[in-house]
Amino acid sequence: MKKSALQIARAAYQPKLPVTLTGAVKAVEGAPTQSVADQDDIKKLFPNTYGMPELRFEKNPAPAPGKPFNVGVILSGGQAPGGHNVICGLFDGIKKINKDSRLYGFLMGPGGLVDHQYKELTSDIIDEYRNTGGFDIIGSGRTKLEKKEQFDKGLEILKQLDIKALVIIGGDDSNTNAAVLAEYYKNIGAGVQVIGCPKTIDGDLKNEVVEASFGFDTATKVYSELIGNIQRDCFSAKKYWHFIKLMGRSASHIALECALQTQPNVCIISEEVEAKNQTLQDVVDYIAGIVAARAKQGNNFGTVLIPEGLIEFIPAMKSLIAELNDLLAKTPDFAQKTTAEQREFLSANLSKANAETFISLPEGVARQLTLDRDPHGNVQVSLIETEKLLSEMVGRRLAKMKAEGSYDGKFSALHHFFGYEGRCAAPSNFDADYCYALGYNAACLINAGVTGYISSLRNLTKPSVQWLAGGVPISMMFNMERRHGEMKPVIQKALVRLDGTPFQRFAAKRDDWAINTQYVFPGPIQYFGPAEVCDQPTLTLHYEHLDK
Amino acid sequence: MKKSALQIARAAYQPKLPVTLTGAVKAVEGAPTQSVADQDDIKKLFPNTYGMPELRFEKNPAPAPGKPFNVGVILSGGQAPGGHNVICGLFDGIKKINKDSRLYGFLMGPGGLVDHQYKELTSDIIDEYRNTGGFDIIGSGRTKLEKKEQFDKGLEILKQLDIKALVIIGGDDSNTNAAVLAEYYKNIGAGVQVIGCPKTIDGDLKNEVVEASFGFDTATKVYSELIGNIQRDCFSAKKYWHFIKLMGRSASHIALECALQTQPNVCIISEEVEAKNQTLQDVVDYIAGIVAARAKQGNNFGTVLIPEGLIEFIPAMKSLIAELNDLLAKTPDFAQKTTAEQREFLSANLSKANAETFISLPEGVARQLTLDRDPHGNVQVSLIETEKLLSEMVGRRLAKMKAEGSYDGKFSALHHFFGYEGRCAAPSNFDADYCYALGYNAACLINAGVTGYISSLRNLTKPSVQWLAGGVPISMMFNMERRHGEMKPVIQKALVRLDGTPFQRFAAKRDDWAINTQYVFPGPIQYFGPAEVCDQPTLTLHYEHLDK
Repeated sequence: MKKSALQIARAAYQPKLPVTLTGAVKAVEGAPTQSVADQDDIKKLFPNTYGMPELRFEKNPAPAPGKPFNVGVILSGGQAPGGHNVICGLFDGIKKINKDSRLYGFLMGPGGLVDHQYKELTSDIIDEYRNTGGFDIIGSGRTKLEKKEQFDKGLEILKQLDIKALVIIGGDDSNTNAAVLAEYYKNIGAGVQVIGCPKTIDGDLKNEVVEASFGFDTATKVYSELIGNIQRDCFSAKKYWHFIKLMGRSASHIALECALQTQPNVCIISEEVEAKNQTLQDVVDYIAGIVAARAKQGNNFGTVLIPEGLIEFIPAMKSLIAELNDLLAKTPDFAQKTTAEQREFLSANLSKANAETFISLPEGVARQLTLDRDPHGNVQVSLIETEKLLSEMVGRRLAKMKAEGSYDGKFSALHHFFGYEGRCAAPSNFDADYCYALGYNAACLINAGVTGYISSLRNLTKPSVQWLAGGVPISMMFNMERRHGEMKPVIQKALVRLDGTPFQRFAAKRDDWAINTQYVFPGPIQYFGPAEVCDQPTLTLHYEHLDK
Repeated sequence: MKKSALQIARAAYQPKLPVTLTGAVKAVEGAPTQSVADQDDIKKLFPNTYGMPELRFEKNPAPAPGKPFNVGVILSGGQAPGGHNVICGLFDGIKKINKDSRLYGFLMGPGGLVDHQYKELTSDIIDEYRNTGGFDIIGSGRTKLEKKEQFDKGLEILKQLDIKALVIIGGDDSNTNAAVLAEYYKNIGAGVQVIGCPKTIDGDLKNEVVEASFGFDTATKVYSELIGNIQRDCFSAKKYWHFIKLMGRSASHIALECALQTQPNVCIISEEVEAKNQTLQDVVDYIAGIVAARAKQGNNFGTVLIPEGLIEFIPAMKSLIAELNDLLAKTPDFAQKTTAEQREFLSANLSKANAETFISLPEGVARQLTLDRDPHGNVQVSLIETEKLLSEMVGRRLAKMKAEGSYDGKFSALHHFFGYEGRCAAPSNFDADYCYALGYNAACLINAGVTGYISSLRNLTKPSVQWLAGGVPISMMFNMERRHGEMKPVIQKALVRLDGTPFQRFAAKRDDWAINTQYVFPGPIQYFGPAEVCDQPTLTLHYEHLDK
């Protein structure tokens, strides 16, 4: 493929490794670990890999010469900026240990392991992908590695290629599965180590031992660039309210980080809506109140950030959706009814509270909730255009307020949704460095002979050369949760903590931002300028470190 | 307002002026000019300002000391990156001539002149806006300066502020009006010069004498960044077709430039659709054909760029819309009919060809065409979500092809519209330099005593220091066109020329790009890196210069 001028210039960027990793390393063991909760249950499920110590890498003044070994790598789940650099770092790491080591990439996600689809990643291939966005070097996929048959089928090709270790780059579920696979292979004496790397632009895989997942930094910077541009337009034209939905179904970290970066008039945080048991109408009233307050000052414009997952965090909507899923499953002829009959049927058969919620919804959304269902018959919440739903309901609320005399302004809304625009951006310096170091560090973990560990770098608000490198047993992040009716060991999803500094900083400022226009315009990611422009981590990371 | 790190770093950027303008200048007159067409009519309408010579600035080895003078400035119409730099250049230019010169900004567009809303722009204000996006320094607006009463009312405040010249920064219509105003003020001996500056991100104000309008460079680079990111995602996930609508109602320059930059699988050019007298179904069949051809190779993914104005360029749609506007104006009870009655009424009353077109449209679009009408009763074409319309029709066509056995793939579409994301981006180096020079050059035109001129820089594919500076009579760009039933002198809109090199290059490559994925990923605008990354003009400009 033809390369852009930036891609060519950026190919020459050499990610800055932590000093510890620049020469030979030795692994220093910490104390034995335990899982964050449900220790007994999890210990039982992971007899071979539970309780292992954290590892810290230090410089090794007297290294033994490394032997060559083969490694497999998998990209799992949605794209995130920097995935290619994890693979480049892994490649350079195993080659540094011994130049005859080899790297195999399994194609189109975990399915490639099961189906024996792979390619060897040689230096000419690797060099094409340094510091680039995307997962196209080997592709990604959403097959879940969960079953014994998959593990056994995968082992065949691992043995055939003489692979000593498998690196799985993925989110919370993929790392959970990596730990299960590690336990299984250890238990049967397969002789294959499994190492995880933390990826997710949503920012929901982080905790005491994993400070950040890669991709969040770049993606939020791309979204913040666009929000800033829209805010400058909004502030120049002074006539539109922009409703901007942002990727992030299971947590609102992206919306919160973008709010901290750009200071919009409104940002909804799903976790807060849930904690305060707010209804959709509460959210609408809150936004309409700010629109009206700004109109009083003659400002009939503004910006509203909305996390993609909002609807699923609203208790009343969650309850409605659950009952709809049940009810419609029991009513096979529902789709054949006329629209009027459908509404009547639902009003009669839903519980009183849910019927009220249903009736309050704009017609288009009500239709989406009842018609568009996935192959399992469930409502497809992700299809709901929350940004349009909210602006329509805000418009209706304002019309009522106008009739009552409590609002006197103009309300004209525009809509945006940013997701795909940021998932495959070329990584920021932070993500380029972080990903490369994660991969390089994974090579060191393999060389240290461990399994069921996640590649871990800490001290991330410091310059990358000062980061601390090591590994953490994945089981340390586990608790037991009900999934599809069964209790399973899983990594706790990191939601926005309402008592954490990132949210607290936002909460302390939002009333000022709402009324007194305080937009910030971050501009595009820069790669070549001064450090304060090119190398700043996210404000989320910065504020989280203040909590420590 | 709080400034981002990039904004602070970027404030220090000193735009690179053409060498000619770096010291005192003298104006060298060329031969008398004439309008591009309808010379007799236009000469009659502009007795005082027709036929003036082009001006070229040269260094002046023996300058006379400049006297102080006051200038007014107006931002007219939609935002475009670099507007602030035009004002900064104008400020520095008049201060260079005499440090006691003053600059007044009229607020929220041409309306500010008529309503006497203004503020003085002093150096502390100007310094806050150097190299920033947006028009928020004085705001913009869409009031048209067309009537004698407006001109007279404006003159009052111009006289009161002792303003010698008015600079109007705007698109083709605003510059047309600037020329009319210049003629009027000259005719009545008002003693106020009027100078235009060419602005439009759409790229439709350019010709033999205006090589480019500002904003196009930055806006297309922002859109190309996003398209590139989406293409990388598309190529990694390999499961979606992305339909991406791009700003640009009256011409397809933006879509064409973005296609040249990113090499998508499909890009529709409205001007070609019109020239070939294609129907909507023709466009749909073309896209569906490419989807099917890619599916044959196992590639069920791709990207489609669509210019915002497409619908209005399709002859059959134009004809349908025109007849609908007439018919619905004569049918006041239309809105009261049921949906079924409406469709029946239209089938019975539209001409046969238009009825056929109407019936071929998806229901949602048909509804938009008949229900959503503007205050004048006209169909609101801009509300039609062309990207969704096309993907829906392509999906239907593919279903038919599947039934016939000529298609065997999966088709899943995602939609994007990019407009507001780019209009207020911070200007690229090109636009920062170009805008600053346009404003500075306007100061020199004022000092040269001329009126009815547009600020002109040429040789734009060369480094900015080599640009040629001067002025061109606006009337030189005029021809007569029917507008709202009357013949008017207007600047010819620049459409995409199907015989021009930019389109020809695209046309020569598109079949290859359609089938063999050839995506380019331009990445974000860079300000601090190597020249080949930071200072490249658009490919449109580059190829147009090859034509000269």
